[in-house]
Amino acid sequence: MVRAIDWVNGKVRMLDQTRLPLEVRFVDIDDYKVVAEGIKKLWIRGAPAIGIASAMGIALAAIDINTSDVETFKKELEPAIDTMIGTRPTAINIRWAMDRIKMLMESNSDRSVNELKAMLIEEGQKILNEDIEINRSIGKWGADFLKDGDTVLTHCNAGALATGGYGTATAPIHVSIEQGKRISVIADETRPVLQGARLTAWELMQAGVPVTLITDNSAGALMKKGYIDAVIVGTDRTVANGDVANKIGTYSVAVLCKEHSIPFYVAAPISSIDFSLDNGELIPIEERDSSEVTLVSGECRIAPEGVNVINMAFDVTPAEYVTAIFTEKGAFRPSDLAKLADEGTDLEKIRISP
Amino acid sequence: MVRAIDWVNGKVRMLDQTRLPLEVRFVDIDDYKVVAEGIKKLWIRGAPAIGIASAMGIALAAIDINTSDVETFKKELEPAIDTMIGTRPTAINIRWAMDRIKMLMESNSDRSVNELKAMLIEEGQKILNEDIEINRSIGKWGADFLKDGDTVLTHCNAGALATGGYGTATAPIHVSIEQGKRISVIADETRPVLQGARLTAWELMQAGVPVTLITDNSAGALMKKGYIDAVIVGTDRTVANGDVANKIGTYSVAVLCKEHSIPFYVAAPISSIDFSLDNGELIPIEERDSSEVTLVSGECRIAPEGVNVINMAFDVTPAEYVTAIFTEKGAFRPSDLAKLADEGTDLEKIRISP
Repeated sequence: MVRAIDWVNGKVRMLDQTRLPLEVRFVDIDDYKVVAEGIKKLWIRGAPAIGIASAMGIALAAIDINTSDVETFKKELEPAIDTMIGTRPTAINIRWAMDRIKMLMESNSDRSVNELKAMLIEEGQKILNEDIEINRSIGKWGADFLKDGDTVLTHCNAGALATGGYGTATAPIHVSIEQGKRISVIADETRPVLQGARLTAWELMQAGVPVTLITDNSAGALMKKGYIDAVIVGTDRTVANGDVANKIGTYSVAVLCKEHSIPFYVAAPISSIDFSLDNGELIPIEERDSSEVTLVSGECRIAPEGVNVINMAFDVTPAEYVTAIFTEKGAFRPSDLAKLADEGTDLEKIRISP
Repeated sequence: MVRAIDWVNGKVRMLDQTRLPLEVRFVDIDDYKVVAEGIKKLWIRGAPAIGIASAMGIALAAIDINTSDVETFKKELEPAIDTMIGTRPTAINIRWAMDRIKMLMESNSDRSVNELKAMLIEEGQKILNEDIEINRSIGKWGADFLKDGDTVLTHCNAGALATGGYGTATAPIHVSIEQGKRISVIADETRPVLQGARLTAWELMQAGVPVTLITDNSAGALMKKGYIDAVIVGTDRTVANGDVANKIGTYSVAVLCKEHSIPFYVAAPISSIDFSLDNGELIPIEERDSSEVTLVSGECRIAPEGVNVINMAFDVTPAEYVTAIFTEKGAFRPSDLAKLADEGTDLEKIRISP
């Protein structure tokens, strides 16, 4: 399986996803500023993946600081932390990774600079490995819902490229295949930015998973023909009542699933669940530049100059359309999701199986 | 309103639609072989429009024949007719136009060559004007179903560019606007070939109709937000039970309409209704080359080399999803469509109104 982000021989190895699928360019980086640039320029994207990258960037910054004085070391590390947070200010995973690094340093203020450097180098890899573990768990719970021979449709990219590995929506597919089931995938191309065509199709081909690319508007006809057994999508934010915000088009797929009695699953690490919002109507939906629609890949103009465009980046799928939500703690009914916020909840009682 | 095909000063004026929306190139043609080339190279597309073009091409061929002997004239016209039929062998409207021309010549075999030439020149323009009349009638019946302030979503291009004028799916919109109603349009971009982005958005902007372009996968989210009051689409073939074959993605839009209680209308000239087929399952669905999906506009690669693709050009929307079918003879329930084949049917009794 492809690794979008890794720590190799004391450097950050990052796959430049902006060039996919035309060119596969791995960049080995020894300067935190280049890591920040890579995050900013979307060489790497996906909430978990950029969190990992930012933490590994801090390790690079730490290596380059020449002092044995802990206070000086901490002070000199601060600009790197600020740079990482500044790359994508709304990315919650970068903030979370930076907070984790700050806490690590505070709770180890008695250590030497060299010890702190070693801990920071370890921390980036720890965050990577934890992410892979979370995704494997999502995959394990989700795999129970897939049968040998199933064809799974997915939308956008919630795959290995968006994470440390396995992906979220793709994890149940990879785990099912590891279990010996034959699973194939249909990838929606996912206009306007085409993450399905550029990323999901590519990474599944790399991983040897049978994948077929379709235009977004083919899903309904294929469901009607019985080509699709299940849908699994990722989520940008899922809220307490089980409403799911994800890439534009996810809601249409969910409606089509309802019409064809096809299960619609959402793979959601607990970190993507926002228990503070009661329902999906409260999720702000970003409208993005019309040029994403009128210029494909930023160069091929496909629409008249000056045409009016609505380009909503995300939509909200109400919980009623969601068959189950796969998390690292189990598979749950969307209506039971709020109970996960309560640490006293007996998960065994609310976990569901097919 | 833009004219895709016209007869101007003894020449065929054709809009080269392959260059839209980047370039607006009208070509004045005085050689039938160039008309045939234009049909073949898709400068002009849409069943009615290519029928008109082929008939006008025959008029050009007739003008160029130097003889006063009627038999020689007929004989020399034959290669032109064969050339037209050969441009797009499955295009029923070209065959129909050529049959009409042959019959015209047979039933006027007592006329002089000059008279026949004049009749052929007239015939092309007659076919054009009849098509506009049919579309205006479709528009008149369909306009009854649109209210002042409505926003209509359409898919693909069944507009003026595909016809002699007015279009089929767009005719109720144009007629409504002529009646003083304020109507705006949302155009699905219609992957893979993007007829909505390239053609529908362009021609409606030219006609001064307010139009907003969206990616195909935005329709569901916009319906949920209440942005869409009605859907009108064209059809490549509608069959006796009211099942509708049209551009891929039409079926998904119909399912979304059902879920949101939005009326789903089909504009179908009687010539597009195939009374010989009982239901839509019998309509052969063309699978087209994967490069339409993987290369946008034939040049921008958006998917990995060698990826597997399903590229169905059309889908079938079952009659149960269709609120009404607008024809030049009235608006009908899909379940009453078969009755149109019977000349004894009292149309008044089966016409519907909103």
